[in-house]
Amino acid sequence: MQKARIGVTGLAVMGRNLARNLARHGHPVAVHNRTSARTKALVEEFGGEGTFLPAETPERFVESLERPRRLVVMVKAGGPTDAVIDEFAPLLEPGDMIVDGGNANFADTRRREAALRERGIHFVGTGVSGGEEGALLGPSIMPGGSAESYEALGPLLEDISAKVDGTPCCVHVGPDGAGHFVKMVHNGIEYADMQLIAEAYDLLRHAAGLAPAEIAEVFRTWNTGRLESYLIEITAEVLAHTDASTGKPFVDVVLDQAEQKGTGRWTVQTALDLGVPVGGIAEAVFARSVSGHAALREAARGLPGPSRTVMAGSGFADAVEKALYASKIVAYAQGFHEIQAGSAEYGWNIDLGAMATIWRGGCIIRARFLDRIRAAYEADPETPTLLTDDHFAEAVGDAQGAWREVVAAAARIGVPAPGFSTALAYYDSLRADRLPAALTQGQRDFFGAHTYRRTDRDGSFHTLWGGDRTEAGA
Amino acid sequence: MQKARIGVTGLAVMGRNLARNLARHGHPVAVHNRTSARTKALVEEFGGEGTFLPAETPERFVESLERPRRLVVMVKAGGPTDAVIDEFAPLLEPGDMIVDGGNANFADTRRREAALRERGIHFVGTGVSGGEEGALLGPSIMPGGSAESYEALGPLLEDISAKVDGTPCCVHVGPDGAGHFVKMVHNGIEYADMQLIAEAYDLLRHAAGLAPAEIAEVFRTWNTGRLESYLIEITAEVLAHTDASTGKPFVDVVLDQAEQKGTGRWTVQTALDLGVPVGGIAEAVFARSVSGHAALREAARGLPGPSRTVMAGSGFADAVEKALYASKIVAYAQGFHEIQAGSAEYGWNIDLGAMATIWRGGCIIRARFLDRIRAAYEADPETPTLLTDDHFAEAVGDAQGAWREVVAAAARIGVPAPGFSTALAYYDSLRADRLPAALTQGQRDFFGAHTYRRTDRDGSFHTLWGGDRTEAGA
Repeated sequence: MQKARIGVTGLAVMGRNLARNLARHGHPVAVHNRTSARTKALVEEFGGEGTFLPAETPERFVESLERPRRLVVMVKAGGPTDAVIDEFAPLLEPGDMIVDGGNANFADTRRREAALRERGIHFVGTGVSGGEEGALLGPSIMPGGSAESYEALGPLLEDISAKVDGTPCCVHVGPDGAGHFVKMVHNGIEYADMQLIAEAYDLLRHAAGLAPAEIAEVFRTWNTGRLESYLIEITAEVLAHTDASTGKPFVDVVLDQAEQKGTGRWTVQTALDLGVPVGGIAEAVFARSVSGHAALREAARGLPGPSRTVMAGSGFADAVEKALYASKIVAYAQGFHEIQAGSAEYGWNIDLGAMATIWRGGCIIRARFLDRIRAAYEADPETPTLLTDDHFAEAVGDAQGAWREVVAAAARIGVPAPGFSTALAYYDSLRADRLPAALTQGQRDFFGAHTYRRTDRDGSFHTLWGGDRTEAGA
Repeated sequence: MQKARIGVTGLAVMGRNLARNLARHGHPVAVHNRTSARTKALVEEFGGEGTFLPAETPERFVESLERPRRLVVMVKAGGPTDAVIDEFAPLLEPGDMIVDGGNANFADTRRREAALRERGIHFVGTGVSGGEEGALLGPSIMPGGSAESYEALGPLLEDISAKVDGTPCCVHVGPDGAGHFVKMVHNGIEYADMQLIAEAYDLLRHAAGLAPAEIAEVFRTWNTGRLESYLIEITAEVLAHTDASTGKPFVDVVLDQAEQKGTGRWTVQTALDLGVPVGGIAEAVFARSVSGHAALREAARGLPGPSRTVMAGSGFADAVEKALYASKIVAYAQGFHEIQAGSAEYGWNIDLGAMATIWRGGCIIRARFLDRIRAAYEADPETPTLLTDDHFAEAVGDAQGAWREVVAAAARIGVPAPGFSTALAYYDSLRADRLPAALTQGQRDFFGAHTYRRTDRDGSFHTLWGGDRTEAGA
């Protein structure tokens, strides 16, 4: 009986497309689904694309795999993933691999990896980005887990991943939860990137007074320059689209209430645990959350503010491009800082440049820009922040005057720009000689005797605020 | 043998001062500490203040309490709290109460309350704010737990709490974790309030070119107006203070690296879980976190930006006062939104006006301002946001022109003002007719078929972006 090189269980759209991608690359793939109708439909519809070995039961599915077995799980994160693991693990043998390609929380992945490792089974938490289309045509793949499992899995995953300049968008990220951690931050960065684009659009619309179709043209132009990316490209497509039923710009008939789900939120929550400031991602998550609070917005709609007057000269779009680029650099710098901190905290030894490399293609944030980040880490793998890289420092230095004017204009005319603003404040905080955190420390010492350090000598100090205000070493 | 009305175990400074407070109010109080030296020291030093019943062992401690027993635990949050519960619970009987006065995470409090409830013991997670001095002279007290436990405990806690206009700064917050939840948000608001003050100081220093002693005078003046509060008062004290060893302003010799601990971070993480935007609190936590990243700041110090030129006319301080007041309203509105959402999520039925009432005295954020919040909830207990209350809407309406100029000035001259900026963006987002979230939803439908809703009819829709771009109901 022919054996499959790899198997996929869970044949909703992502799983189905991954299985097809594997088959199309010449890898015989076992396919299984809890309800077998999906398995049959896959083979009937796409059986001609390669070798599919359908299995109706977990036992037959596992039997049909070469050893060591490579079993890809594509089910919902959380309980369903645990249920599938509980079902399949007893059927596996030491050396076999379970690959979780869902959007799992990395803490769950760490827990699962540890539990299966005790039984000799490799658990490979793997980020897969690129949506349905990416899964079929080549996603960006971020596998965690043991180095040993990557030896057996890596060639297949690299084979089906997107390629940029001949380089696969897949690399071994690091042990246990590293892959899902990096995928989480990827999604957080995606939130920030989308929010910045939304602010740029909003300013061009309400400050510069451009129509959606005109703004689409602006984005098309931007997509030929340093902002070239999938998200800028589809922004132009969305803005150029006319709603057939009303004849209005499509963007004007879409309800302006966005949703926020797990990974964006997790990125911020995890950053808080790690002590990493990620204002760009946080403001993006909050902006979606604000937009969805319909009752709150309805109540606040009459609150006073300036009217959104058209104010901008012809240079305004260029200024917005600079604000967008500079803010984007900050958002990515914050995201990479989080990966660096996570890697240090969990001992993952993640190669930051390699992450930029595998995000260049396949995923939602794919962009020319990421090659700059790859180059920055190649030049200095230990750089504490992308902002000090020569290219980025120069770009921000060139952009900052315009960036400041855009943030100022947004404040003046009442167009919310929380992403641009937080990015600028972060930049100005990092480069500040002195921060008012000194006052904060003084206050904390005043009301809670929390002590402070001094600029001129080591140690902890406390001022006797309630007494004669002399200073005591603590 | 005389019995104590209440007992305190854990006699570090907070526990010792709470015990003294109880004794000073005529309540015989049993005192216990893991190492009995502290117990002895308390009785020797402060025994004259009231009736202390020292106990060397947990058994003697419990025996010395009237029934139902009221046992206050003042130890570190986390493991130490669990250890004390495990030690004392077996000695208690149904109807007895364990009061946890530490800064516990409300989720831990919910777990502990549920476990002890099964044994008939009331677990009363209680927020206590006001630091050492508050604990001794009258804190703000936020007890959770059962209504039955509050009947037995409330009178004592109200007795030792701060009073404002004769009203105790203590009220039953709600079941299980409600008290610790509210204390957490209180601390988050405290973070935001301190950050806004820090930004006001920084702008007066670097934009208006004032010296710390001059800024102290500005804060003193503010403290006679609507900003009157403990934090504004001590800001003036800290800024007026001269360092004895250098003769420099104290604030200039303090290292400008602030620390952030549990409750501020938890407030943001919990808000994310609840879908509540709390940018003001998040930016405050991040600002502390940025300040502490010394290596990052050192690397970024040379990055280009405008010099912080003196630019302001005599009206600038007034404009900053307005920016501070408006931003403060936003930060509190966000915090109260979080309490409202938490209360709904966990079925706590929290009286928001009562929270404002008990924060008017005893705690770090005590302020005249809180009486305005109390009044706002009295006028409309169901208001979705404080921003639409008549007083606050008018105040923000009056302040917003100046607020916008301050945010614009900060961006222009390179003084980071993330708190002022995020508050303004939140305000402008809430009052916006349309948000660019419509574009975000269009993008999500484009790359992930996430669907969108329309402004003109119900349902979920998907545009066939990869096909003929017709719209399908989903």
